Amino acid sequence: MAGERLIYMPLGGAGEIGMNAYVYGHGAPGKERLILVDLGVAFPDMDTAPGADVILPDLDWLIQRKDRLEAIFITHAHEDHIGALPHLWPMLKKPIYARKFTAAIARLKFEESGLATDLIRVVEPRPRTVEVGPFKVQFVPVAHSIPESAALVIDTAAGRIVHSGDFKVDETPIVGEPWSDQVMSEIAAERPVKAFMCDSTNVFNSHAGRSESILAAPLGKLIEDAGGMIVATTFASNVARLKTLAEAGRAAGREICLLGRAMKRMVAAAEQTGVLTGFPRNLPPEEALDVPRRHLMLIVTGSQGERRAAAAALSRGKYLGFELKEGDTFLFSSKTIPGNEKDVLRLVNAYSEMGVDVVDEQGGLYHVSGHANRPDLERAHQLLLPDMVIPMHGEHRHLREHVKVAHEAGIAAMIATNGTMLNLTGDVPEVCDRIEAGRVYLDGTVLVGAMDGVIRDRIRMALNGQVTVTVLLDENDQPLGEAWVETMGLTDLGRGGRSLTETLERDLTELIEGAPRKLLKDDDKLDEALKKVARQVTMEEIGKKPEVTVVISRLTVE
Amino acid sequence: MAGERLIYMPLGGAGEIGMNAYVYGHGAPGKERLILVDLGVAFPDMDTAPGADVILPDLDWLIQRKDRLEAIFITHAHEDHIGALPHLWPMLKKPIYARKFTAAIARLKFEESGLATDLIRVVEPRPRTVEVGPFKVQFVPVAHSIPESAALVIDTAAGRIVHSGDFKVDETPIVGEPWSDQVMSEIAAERPVKAFMCDSTNVFNSHAGRSESILAAPLGKLIEDAGGMIVATTFASNVARLKTLAEAGRAAGREICLLGRAMKRMVAAAEQTGVLTGFPRNLPPEEALDVPRRHLMLIVTGSQGERRAAAAALSRGKYLGFELKEGDTFLFSSKTIPGNEKDVLRLVNAYSEMGVDVVDEQGGLYHVSGHANRPDLERAHQLLLPDMVIPMHGEHRHLREHVKVAHEAGIAAMIATNGTMLNLTGDVPEVCDRIEAGRVYLDGTVLVGAMDGVIRDRIRMALNGQVTVTVLLDENDQPLGEAWVETMGLTDLGRGGRSLTETLERDLTELIEGAPRKLLKDDDKLDEALKKVARQVTMEEIGKKPEVTVVISRLTVE
Repeated sequence: MAGERLIYMPLGGAGEIGMNAYVYGHGAPGKERLILVDLGVAFPDMDTAPGADVILPDLDWLIQRKDRLEAIFITHAHEDHIGALPHLWPMLKKPIYARKFTAAIARLKFEESGLATDLIRVVEPRPRTVEVGPFKVQFVPVAHSIPESAALVIDTAAGRIVHSGDFKVDETPIVGEPWSDQVMSEIAAERPVKAFMCDSTNVFNSHAGRSESILAAPLGKLIEDAGGMIVATTFASNVARLKTLAEAGRAAGREICLLGRAMKRMVAAAEQTGVLTGFPRNLPPEEALDVPRRHLMLIVTGSQGERRAAAAALSRGKYLGFELKEGDTFLFSSKTIPGNEKDVLRLVNAYSEMGVDVVDEQGGLYHVSGHANRPDLERAHQLLLPDMVIPMHGEHRHLREHVKVAHEAGIAAMIATNGTMLNLTGDVPEVCDRIEAGRVYLDGTVLVGAMDGVIRDRIRMALNGQVTVTVLLDENDQPLGEAWVETMGLTDLGRGGRSLTETLERDLTELIEGAPRKLLKDDDKLDEALKKVARQVTMEEIGKKPEVTVVISRLTVE
Repeated sequence: MAGERLIYMPLGGAGEIGMNAYVYGHGAPGKERLILVDLGVAFPDMDTAPGADVILPDLDWLIQRKDRLEAIFITHAHEDHIGALPHLWPMLKKPIYARKFTAAIARLKFEESGLATDLIRVVEPRPRTVEVGPFKVQFVPVAHSIPESAALVIDTAAGRIVHSGDFKVDETPIVGEPWSDQVMSEIAAERPVKAFMCDSTNVFNSHAGRSESILAAPLGKLIEDAGGMIVATTFASNVARLKTLAEAGRAAGREICLLGRAMKRMVAAAEQTGVLTGFPRNLPPEEALDVPRRHLMLIVTGSQGERRAAAAALSRGKYLGFELKEGDTFLFSSKTIPGNEKDVLRLVNAYSEMGVDVVDEQGGLYHVSGHANRPDLERAHQLLLPDMVIPMHGEHRHLREHVKVAHEAGIAAMIATNGTMLNLTGDVPEVCDRIEAGRVYLDGTVLVGAMDGVIRDRIRMALNGQVTVTVLLDENDQPLGEAWVETMGLTDLGRGGRSLTETLERDLTELIEGAPRKLLKDDDKLDEALKKVARQVTMEEIGKKPEVTVVISRLTVE
């Protein structure tokens, strides 16, 4: 219809890997009906968000327009695509569409959070079509590192969009549906593809992707050759890998035992939804403890060095009765995600101290990625023949490289980072708006804005330490006793071996005792003066500029 | 002499990469005369030591025995071998022996710290021998990624030790002396080598090491082909690389400009000591600004993403008048040290946003390591034919693998991590003592023990936030007014939208108003009770368990 437009705006996932959240809209400008694709989390670190539990996309824009939001579509059950649902869905309360396995995981999350699950709706794959407002949406099975990952075909009056989700070109994925050139060609033949929003994670890898199925032989040989107990770790949601590992273990005459809540939960959900069949026999931990170690294989959570997972627990000593020792083998059937290197190496060194042989993925021998490499991306572009490629699911460097890949094939392409709204109505994408798209932190049980200073103050206390200054003033604004100082995260040993606290108290007492009444009457100015001196003295004594809390107590006539 | 022994004990560097510090001793047990080899730092991170400046080895053991310490030998001028000198030498005050370039860097550091430099002594290489106590020490030039790296030949009555320092097998190192098989063979022929303390950094790399000289051609081609400005970064101390980069730039008709204090300082020291000659013409920044960008090449500090270095400054925008833009090329002629990935990727994404083409080391095309790979280690073992190999300069996993390498060649070997004292007198190493070997932090201007709680408190505040509670009691231990609460690093939005601070104040006031006199009289118990309630309430309101500072002010009759 004339005057209507088709828009796209990432609120998360375009400019980082993590917290995917993509908005599509169709309708009159400013009145578009909207859908949201994925609602994931990212994981905080000490450098940028100490103490935060997870990072969520800032949905302010969408929440303000939730009357225009038709539904939420979840492509697959990885945390960076589904993890924010229990935290942010209560502010949206719209139907959630997902395939069976994904919906099962969503339901578990909702139940844990005490949320009603009646708006979680299971969708069969294409040709089944969900109609919501001006959108017709189909789930297209693609291969990935979790069962039932889906690309979305999103049809509107303004044209057809394909949203890749996370995918790889794998025609033998062990569990779940294979990648199909034919299906992609059919999608393009059925109706020309206007825009292809495409996963960019592996754009820098110039080799064609490798199938999950090639791992069985090398894993089998490794396990066959190992002497003591074998402990293997991989991503809990990589059900195909779990199966390959377990089958290799069984083939080598070992009993299998899964350790780690996330892993058992994933396998159970995959079996219950019928996605996973024929998973080898595995023993509960209490039975596995009786198996001689050369006949035992543990498959455990914690491939990224997560401190609460089973792999880390085993690195600290006994865990559920299991204990690694000389002659055992620990296998990382996984890749270290950038940023997790130190945590993973901490495990490796701990195992080394126990005399355990640690085997990493050996440059791909024991692990394959779940994402499409550059030649696979080119292949997908060629099959879908879109008018334009809009890269998503990547840091800026990935998006930029992906645009280059499209341009080299003569396809229009544009980087749209979080908060960039594109108008896709014409032949080429056009930026039509930019909003402030940020992140919020789940911190304990509350949401904290990334820019509101709470996390910044925690970082500052970590870097600089903290000083609390208390002064007590009487009804006439005169000091009652001396200034009182407590420090936290600072050494008390100042210059010449004297106490930092005592020096601070002496100098701050001097300040209040010599201060003019005008200063003592004015809370703000007195606070400022005390802070300044507290910082100066701490700097002189120990070379740190601490965060200072000043408490001024005034006795008032009752 | 009968009853004497030869001992070795790492105080840093064996069990981590960084803060190298190795003690050798010879004499009657418990009365050995000692030397220290290297005194380096490691670099802290937010996870383990937020706010600390550098990590230093804990020298308590050595300081208590400093009357037995003859001298300090520094193998080369990398921070992990020399960086702790200005901080810890004042507690030792013994002569420092080093080669000319290393000594020049040590002198610069001492001058900056206001320390006397008269005990820093320049030593010519082998056959020149330094005699201190029962030790005769020679500096043997080896190739590394900094000029004048040296292995040490340490002779005692109990036998000859070779301490490798950091080295690589490079017969064409561009700057400085090449690795020499012949020299190593001569050392072993002259006198049998009892023990070889050997660098383990690259033990997991199974390819023979590659020479610095192979980089000239690919770097030349890259620079030749680039369009706009080129900015290259590498380790400031890698003077050979700086020369190769600068020569490649000049050959491509570009003017060269060095940015970053550390880099200019290293080049100046290398030229002044005669280590570096023929470094190409380079312009000061103010002149380089006038050069058209296609004729300009900047060589900058900050290859690890360090926030204060030139590379990071350029990623944030204009720096000294220079600004990167579309069409420029940024080259990492360096490898990312594990743990620095996020910092480096932050730069890469920032450059990507500017439209700059970022080129990394391309799997070794534009960078070679300064350490010996596994085949090189085997070669060194074979040339020196030691009775035993004691791996050093590595995490536990490196040391363990290095022991395996030695064992496969039939050489006795043992892991000795920090604080493990080995008796080397016999044919095989024997553990003869274990001491607490830890780390201390330079935090501002003071040294802080890793275990004394200061850093732990800072980490806790970063994770949990901080609450200050103030209560005021009169002469009769009765509350004067209400409890007063300040929070830092916590959101104030509690359950149902109410103020966390107000809820805390209400509940804490209730506590003190209803408290029995016995509790109000007892500072410790009252402190404990207030803390407990403050934590509970904060947990209920926002799901965090904060660090709490309680200040109890008591009015006393004057």
